[in-house]
This record gives sequence, structure tokens and C-alpha cells, in this order.
Amino acid sequence: MDHHVHGALKDDVSQSVFETLITESDRAIPAWMSQFDSQVGFAIRRWCAPVLGLPRHAAAAEYMKARASLGTDEVNRRLLSGAGVGHFLVETGYRGDEILNPEQMGQSAGQRASEVVRLEAVAESIVESGVTAKSFPERYVQALANATTHAVGVKSIIAYRWGFDFEPARPAKVAVIEAARNWLEAFANGGPLKVEDPVLLRFFLWAGVDRGLPIQLHTGYGDPDLRLDRCNPLLLTPWIKLIEPASVDIMLLHCYPYHREAGYLAQVFPHVYFDVGLGVNYTGVQSEQILAESLELTPFSKLLFSSDAWGPAELHYLGSALWRQGMTNVLQRWVDAGDWSEDDAIRVVNMIATENATRVYKLAGGRS
Amino acid sequence: MDHHVHGALKDDVSQSVFETLITESDRAIPAWMSQFDSQVGFAIRRWCAPVLGLPRHAAAAEYMKARASLGTDEVNRRLLSGAGVGHFLVETGYRGDEILNPEQMGQSAGQRASEVVRLEAVAESIVESGVTAKSFPERYVQALANATTHAVGVKSIIAYRWGFDFEPARPAKVAVIEAARNWLEAFANGGPLKVEDPVLLRFFLWAGVDRGLPIQLHTGYGDPDLRLDRCNPLLLTPWIKLIEPASVDIMLLHCYPYHREAGYLAQVFPHVYFDVGLGVNYTGVQSEQILAESLELTPFSKLLFSSDAWGPAELHYLGSALWRQGMTNVLQRWVDAGDWSEDDAIRVVNMIATENATRVYKLAGGRS
Amino acid sequence: MDHHVHGALKDDVSQSVFETLITESDRAIPAWMSQFDSQVGFAIRRWCAPVLGLPRHAAAAEYMKARASLGTDEVNRRLLSGAGVGHFLVETGYRGDEILNPEQMGQSAGQRASEVVRLEAVAESIVESGVTAKSFPERYVQALANATTHAVGVKSIIAYRWGFDFEPARPAKVAVIEAARNWLEAFANGGPLKVEDPVLLRFFLWAGVDRGLPIQLHTGYGDPDLRLDRCNPLLLTPWIKLIEPASVDIMLLHCYPYHREAGYLAQVFPHVYFDVGLGVNYTGVQSEQILAESLELTPFSKLLFSSDAWGPAELHYLGSALWRQGMTNVLQRWVDAGDWSEDDAIRVVNMIATENATRVYKLAGGRS
Repeated sequence: MDHHVHGALKDDVSQSVFETLITESDRAIPAWMSQFDSQVGFAIRRWCAPVLGLPRHAAAAEYMKARASLGTDEVNRRLLSGAGVGHFLVETGYRGDEILNPEQMGQSAGQRASEVVRLEAVAESIVESGVTAKSFPERYVQALANATTHAVGVKSIIAYRWGFDFEPARPAKVAVIEAARNWLEAFANGGPLKVEDPVLLRFFLWAGVDRGLPIQLHTGYGDPDLRLDRCNPLLLTPWIKLIEPASVDIMLLHCYPYHREAGYLAQVFPHVYFDVGLGVNYTGVQSEQILAESLELTPFSKLLFSSDAWGPAELHYLGSALWRQGMTNVLQRWVDAGDWSEDDAIRVVNMIATENATRVYKLAGGRS
Repeated sequence: MDHHVHGALKDDVSQSVFETLITESDRAIPAWMSQFDSQVGFAIRRWCAPVLGLPRHAAAAEYMKARASLGTDEVNRRLLSGAGVGHFLVETGYRGDEILNPEQMGQSAGQRASEVVRLEAVAESIVESGVTAKSFPERYVQALANATTHAVGVKSIIAYRWGFDFEPARPAKVAVIEAARNWLEAFANGGPLKVEDPVLLRFFLWAGVDRGLPIQLHTGYGDPDLRLDRCNPLLLTPWIKLIEPASVDIMLLHCYPYHREAGYLAQVFPHVYFDVGLGVNYTGVQSEQILAESLELTPFSKLLFSSDAWGPAELHYLGSALWRQGMTNVLQRWVDAGDWSEDDAIRVVNMIATENATRVYKLAGGRS
Repeated sequence: MDHHVHGALKDDVSQSVFETLITESDRAIPAWMSQFDSQVGFAIRRWCAPVLGLPRHAAAAEYMKARASLGTDEVNRRLLSGAGVGHFLVETGYRGDEILNPEQMGQSAGQRASEVVRLEAVAESIVESGVTAKSFPERYVQALANATTHAVGVKSIIAYRWGFDFEPARPAKVAVIEAARNWLEAFANGGPLKVEDPVLLRFFLWAGVDRGLPIQLHTGYGDPDLRLDRCNPLLLTPWIKLIEPASVDIMLLHCYPYHREAGYLAQVFPHVYFDVGLGVNYTGVQSEQILAESLELTPFSKLLFSSDAWGPAELHYLGSALWRQGMTNVLQRWVDAGDWSEDDAIRVVNMIATENATRVYKLAGGRS
């Protein structure tokens, strides 16, 4: 159960474009370096090369050649089905026209796929299609209800757009209308569609709480749009306490390098969950240590698996392959030392891999 | 030498109550989970089950059954004496009527026990017994002197009540009286006894400095009363510098996940010490990594052992068992690699286990 | 290529002085402890004792005796040449009269040495030799140009003098003159030469940007002059973004315990590099874990080697010995597990050891 993932690429890409998709940097890649020379690059050559018919550690150029000759459809089919994921919860709010939608993801992998709706994308879509400031609050709530009819969760990227150091209380309606007015006027005058006003971002979060589905929050490591130190999940503590009566589950995504902090929140607050998704793919062989560190304070019923893959299906595959390998190594070591029983180790793996997500997202029946 | 510990439970407890005592969460435990499914729960089943006559990894229900059939007195006797702790420094300020007092702890373990006095509890006791705002500062100093006649140290929980981001200077007497007046009035009108005013909390800390005994400070990980990021020990730096001339030792307790930061403070300030107490029990098999990380910047004369156990004697036992196992694994690895000598490893273990505490708290003679 | 290092001691030192030079503390060492009882102390006895003709783990007193009998020149010769460093980039701004200058370093080691100029030292030297506030900005720029004629980089210690939480924009000239006036007046009235005004410190940084050489920044762990939490490199993010158009490379030094954060910045910003220099020496055998953690998010083309040694040539030797041993252990483990190829491991070591520094500092030809 990959509880937070995006679509795989639809189209073939050149090596230079591919390299921009295996880093969180959005800058041009300097001529003196290759993004393949990184943990994620080495992991692709180690894990995905055999899936494409090459030996382990095949050179990057050789890898890209095999990829091009197989074509994106076949690469997607091999890597998505090879990931061994039975159910993808696909978040659709980012550059959706370049990637497979949930239905296509399910088809390519031969498995189930459900949708997670990005709170900010719903707002941007009603602004694009036309709305007045005064009607904005109601229109947003309605649009969110419509967009999530079949969704299993919602997602907030307030980490990118502002940070977690926001005023936690539900904003007053008058303040929301005022902020909407500023945004709409700026947009009408050629300003960006991208919503960055903290009052609006908080309003979306609270609308998510009212909607009642689990709320995924991008946490920690991500692209340079964010200020990493303002994405420390501990900054969410006041808001986490405020929404506690609503019994809505909070899913902290990735969390690196704040996964120990996330484990603390997952222990002390019944409605807080987390994963180390993106931090697994991008640390490659070092993800074994990250996974071990994610198994410290948290009750095992509060940890989930995700890949956060977007674009190259290598990331969908790797998220799963590295997680399986890392968990196997860590738990086997503990079992061999006599510190955990083998039965417990298997039970914990099943909780993190499928059972916790099945319960939180109210999905039918474990593995498909 | 367990330099920071609380009493063991006096009475039998059900499994549901027991589970609330093996987490720092103070929330009700949801029906879909068991706190036994956590590192500390697995560690109890692995380490304590054999002490109660069960096989390693016995199921939680089986464990609780054996515990009930032996009875709390026998469970305490086995686990407290089995911990192999020669001297407990017992902090008495939290829910003292449910747990053994220092004398009873010593009797149950067959070992020595001394007292550590909580600074805030002294204040709350004089407010309960009646005091005027004007006389509060003198009364507090007197009460602290009385309470610590036989104590070996004091403890501050300013981390819980405010955070380490406090104004470091000694507060003016007039400000203390004013803050005491507000507290007393609120308490008279049905407000809480619990002291949370930062001026008063600082006043207690400075009174502790004047008293001259080592000052233990809860640091880092703890229950959701605290804001974890405001318990980063680096926030104490200005206060640590201010009190340096007083030559009073500062004992940073637990520190997880800020134990590397604590190691830095212990290296650069002669009067700063630390332990990773609570972080050992609650990370179970992962405590080996925490212990290794605690052995980075600190001089070995600045690190101590504690369990921070409160309540179930399993925590008293585990604190010791996990520390012994973790230290053995880490140091043996370094000795086997030729990086440390075996003599040095044994010497460092003795420093951390008993010698440093014996010196700082001016206790007679090492192991009893 | 040790891209950030200082000179080795010129003169013989007693054990008590030596111990003050193997800690970042500037406090007197209490009688009840020895700085040899620390990771760096154990590493000296393990790694340097054989270089001085003693067995591994020789006692500290024995070690100091051998050191005294060989004399500082011979100790320097053995340890500096034994470090196997082909090129030292020597930063000269700190207590330069007690240590070898770059030329002497090169001679003692039998290798190349180049100079890195401390931005703040240039300012202090022109204040010492006399300058008016009004002419200060131009005089500084001229003095920096003169001081760096043959330099390969500059260094900022704004971390020590203020912290990274500074206003990122280039300060207005009028503000610089005003700040210089205050500094000069205070200095004329017996105040310290040491510059601590944040406007001036920012001015030096921006002058460094204009100068165009790579800018080294002390980051993270250091002596108690700094507030460690204000040296988290993430606090530099706004400034890093502001200077991006200048195409000047930023070298984050040491970074412990924020090396994961540094790895993030190195991934997302093309002009950010880092090392874990000082954090290797002072964590001894634990540096293996630090090195592994430094190999997470960063592209391998963005990581460098440094020792940050100052004074005892043991630190120059250890920086190299620990790095070689730690990298060997970490990469061999990954190769043995089949996760990295041996060719890749060797290639990455060469990038970090020499190629990245050679490219960034525009040095001729790799190993000398």
C-alpha cells in the first residue's frame, strides 16, 4: 500500500530531462556533474537496471539507452508492476498533464489505485474558473466536497507555500474573504495563480479537517521552494492539539531529517501518523539507517509506507525495493540478535506495509 | 548509579493501565492499538519476561497474567534488584502517592537510595499550605533549604512548564512577588496549583543555583505537555553561561533527539553533564544507536547513566538492561576493530556507570 | 586535498596546554578530568602513537613524553607528511603567530600549500593600521583584493561573531559607514578589535561575493563563542538564494550536527558544497557514522574533505586517517552488500578527496 504517490511519466525523456527528475533541485544541472552520481542515481543503476535487462550497476548512459529502446510504456509496466504495490493512493495535484492519472496508474501496474486530492489545487482551480472573494469560502468548501467524492484523503502543501510556523487557529471568515480578494485582484492583474497567503492556506487546512478524510502534509525535505527548517513537524504541535477533538488523522509525509521528531508526535498524539517516503528514495543505501531511525519512538501502528514517487517509474520501484531491503536488513539484524522475535518482525512489516494504511484510509481488505 | 529515577508502582495494575504507563502519551489508548507494539513494549517482552519466569518474547497477555499472579511486590523485588543498580537517586516530585518513596525503593532493591527534590513541587507545596505573595520569595528559599536537607540534587521541569526559551537573567524580586500574586489569586479563585509562570520558573532555577546542589533539567523528549522544539538544550546556552561563575553542575536529562547537541554543551562547558536516560528505554533495540551517538563530542567524564523510570519496575530494569547491552555492543565493536583498547572501554563504562555520578553528587564510594 | 586547514604548532607544548588544544572548549580543564578521555583523545592514542614509535593506545603520559623527546619539528614532519595530503588550503586568520604559515606547512609536509583569507581578519587589520569610517568600505575592498592576490578562497566566521540568522540583503553603504564609525570609536576608547557588528559582518560576506573566490563558512560545531543553534546552515537559505546569480561557490565547513541539513542544501542549490571536517576529528571512531550520514542527499560532486586542524599536527594527521578509515569501512560495506560497485566507490572517493576541490578552487592537477 503506497499511501502517497504521484503518477508515472507518460512520455519518453532524454537523459538530461531524466536527471532533473531524480533530484529535488529545480535548478539547471551544471555541466560538470551528473545527478546519477548520487545515492538515488546509484540506486537506480543497482535496482532498476536488472528490471530493464541490464546487469547491476550498468553505466548511466547504457541505462538510458535501454530505457529509450524499451519505451516509457514498457518501462512503466515493468517498474510499476515490479514494485509489488497492491494499491496506490495517488496524489494528483502537481503537473498532472505530464503523468499517468490514478486509473492509468492502476492499469499500468495491474493493481488498484485511489485518489488523494491536493487542497491548494482545488482552490487554484476555482480561481481559474472564476469566483468572487465574497463567495470564495463557500465555493471552496463545495469544490472540495465535489473533488473528494471518491477520494480517500486530502493533501496539504502548506510546508512549501508558507511553512509550519503558521497561526494555528481557524481563520475568521472575514479574513478569508479579504485574503481571497487580494489574491483574486493580483491574479486578475497578471499575478500568479499559486496561492501563498497564510490565511488562505490555513483555511484550506481547516476545510480539510471539516471534510473528515485523513490529511497528508508534506513535511521536511523537498524542493528549494521550501525553507527546510520551517517544515519541522514540531512546529505543527499547536495545530495538532487544536484539531484533536475533530478525530481527523494527520499523515506526516517524508519528514527527513525530522523523522525522529515525527516519531515523537506519533507516540504522543493518537491522530498523528508518519512515513519516511521521499527520504528513502533519495538516501539510497543509507535509507537502511533512516528506516531504523523511524522505528524509535513511534508505536508500530502509526508508521506507513510511501514512495512519494513522481515521474520516472524508477522512483515508484525504488521506493518499494529500498524499503523492502532496508526493513529486511534492519529487522533481520534484530531477530538474529534475539531482540525481536521473527513473528513480531513479520507482524510489524505487515502493519507498516498495508494494515495501518488500510485502517486509516478505510480501504477494503489489505493486500489486493 | 541510576542518577535520575522515580519510584516503582505500589499497586497492581490492569493491562490497560499498564499500557498507559509505557508511553509518554497521556491520551487514552485507541482500541485499534496496543502500546506493547512499540520498541519499549517489545523490549519488555524480550528482557523482562525471563525475569518473571516466561520465555523471551512471551505474548503481552501472557506477560500481564504472570505479572498479576506474582503480584507487584514480587515483580518490584525481582526487577529492581535484577537491574543491578547499587544506588538510586530518586526524584520524588511527580504523583508520589502512587509509587514507592526513596526508602521503599532502596528496600525493594536491596540497595541504597537518595533523594532529588523537584524545584516546582516545593513551590506548589508552600502555595497549598498557604503563603502571601510578599513573603513568597523568602518562604520558597527556606522551604527549598528544608526540603533538600538530605537531598543530593534538585530537578527543574521548566522544559514542561515553559520551555528553554526563557529570559536567562535572575528575575527581580519585585517581579517574582508580582508573579506570585497572580498565581496565588488565580489559585484562590479555583485556578490550577500547577505553576507555569516563566518568572517564577526562572526564580526557582536561580534558587536552585544558590542552593548549590547539582541541578537536573528535563531536556528533550517527554509527554505532550511540552513543546519538543522548545526543549532543545542549545536554547539554554545563555543561562548556562550566566551561571558559570556559580560552579553549580547542570545535568541535562534524556536529551533525545538532541543528544548530539547535549554532547556539544558537555564538551565546551565544564559544568554541563548529560545522559540519554528516557531515550534508551523508549527506543528499545535502537538504543544502541542512541548510545553510540551520545559518545561523540562529550568528554567521557561528562556522561551519566539514568533510567528515568516512573511506575512499572519494568522501566527500572530495562533502563539498565538496555544500557548494558547497548554499551557492550558498541564498545565491543570498537575494541574488536582495534580502535579502542579493552582497558579503556572498561574504564569508560565505569566512569559513566558510577564514577561521574559519584563525583558530581559527592556520594561515597562507587558501587555499594 | 585538505581544503580547510590551519597551521601546525611551531613550538613544544606541555600536556596541560596540549589538552586545551584538543577540545573546542576555551575553558580551563578541571583537575578531575583529562581531555584525553574523549573520542579525539582515544583517536590520538590509537592513530598517532604508532607514528611516534609507540604501540597503539599508549597511555597519554607516555604519548606526551615521546612527543616531547622527538620535538615539535619532527612530530610535525612525521604527522604532516604521514597525513598523505598533497595540497593544504591553509586558513591564516586565527592566532597566526603560534602556528606554521602556509609556506612552512608545505615545507614540513613536503607538499603544496595555498592560502585562504579570513574576511574578518582583513577588516581587523585595516582597523589596527588606521582607517576612517567614511573610507572604510573602499579601504576594505582594496585590502581584501590585496590580501587575496594569491589566495584560492576566502572564509567567513559570521557563525562565531553573530550567527546565520542575519538579514541577508547587501547592506547599504551608509549603514556600513555608520557601523564602522561605532566600531572605530569603541576601539579608540579601548574596546575590542574583534568585529561583531552584523552589518559589518554582512558587508564582508558581500565583499567576498564580489571578490568571486569560493567562500568558506564555518558552520555548526565550534567553540563556545558561538550559539550552535544559530549556526544551522538552513538559516542561510535566504542569503544563499540572494547570491545565486553571482555564481560564487559556498563551502559549508564541518556542519555537525547539521550535516544532513547541509546535504539538503548541496542537493538543491548548485553553488553549495560542504564537508564534515571538524566533526570527523572530534567524534573519533564514531566519525564513520557521520561520514555515512554525510553521504545521503548530496550529489557526490558537492562533498569535500577537510581536517580543520589547528595547532597539534595530530589533528592534521587524524583528519586524514579517520576519514580514510571511515570512508573505507562505509564504502566497503556497501560494495560487499552489492549496493555499490567497487569502481563507483573508488570514483566517489577520488571526487571527495581531490577532484571536487580541484574544480571548485581552480587548482591545477589533482594529486601532487
